Amino acid sequence: MDPVSAVDFAKGGGFVTAIALDDASGDVLMVAVMNEESLRRTLETGEVHYWSRSRGKLWHKGEESGHTQRVKEIYLDCDGDTLLLRVEQRGGAACHTGKRSCFFRKWERGGWVDLGEQVFDPKEVYGR
Amino acid sequence: MDPVSAVDFAKGGGFVTAIALDDASGDVLMVAVMNEESLRRTLETGEVHYWSRSRGKLWHKGEESGHTQRVKEIYLDCDGDTLLLRVEQRGGAACHTGKRSCFFRKWERGGWVDLGEQVFDPKEVYGR
Repeated sequence: MDPVSAVDFAKGGGFVTAIALDDASGDVLMVAVMNEESLRRTLETGEVHYWSRSRGKLWHKGEESGHTQRVKEIYLDCDGDTLLLRVEQRGGAACHTGKRSCFFRKWERGGWVDLGEQVFDPKEVYGR
Repeated sequence: MDPVSAVDFAKGGGFVTAIALDDASGDVLMVAVMNEESLRRTLETGEVHYWSRSRGKLWHKGEESGHTQRVKEIYLDCDGDTLLLRVEQRGGAACHTGKRSCFFRKWERGGWVDLGEQVFDPKEVYGR
């Protein structure tokens, strides 16, 4: 049996949730979705590929910014609809805002506080 | 402005993805969804509440097993559709299988290997 079939893409309409952790620190970097093609390309190349819902296409993470992700380990959850990837984050930033992690807002005293670590300037990297 | 409105429930049809991390170890325990009521109840009580899609109701995590989650910190991602919760996992197991984490299957040599740490016997806890 093809082990990729243990991943339940059907439940989410062809997609599963994919969480990327920084392999060095264990911190959560980002959450995106993968379809079966994304997972197969990730397994084949060792480079993390998600599916971009906004662009409707396979998304080689970092293809534009150069902040690619090298996959180190992959885990699957109990019901098969979420993947957890431990990655080497090249360039040190996973977020399109230029911050290290997408989870830079922390709930404190009834509001959100930005604790983000700015790694790059998105205007310089994306030119917009 | 109500800070809960920074969370984009609309994009996911009333739901956001919620990731629970073990506050002590930093390990990812589980992934579920929250609606606005879940988040408000979690903020009010300090006890993690998700939304159970299978049962169609508010889900006080651990209400049946006793393995509740006390919220320690909450983070919101860049586009507001994913929450990250650092929790104190009471009883030591987050997964309905009785394992510590839901992410117990690891990709190794082209297949999934079960590395789960069994904390309780689900037959004893759920009586089924």
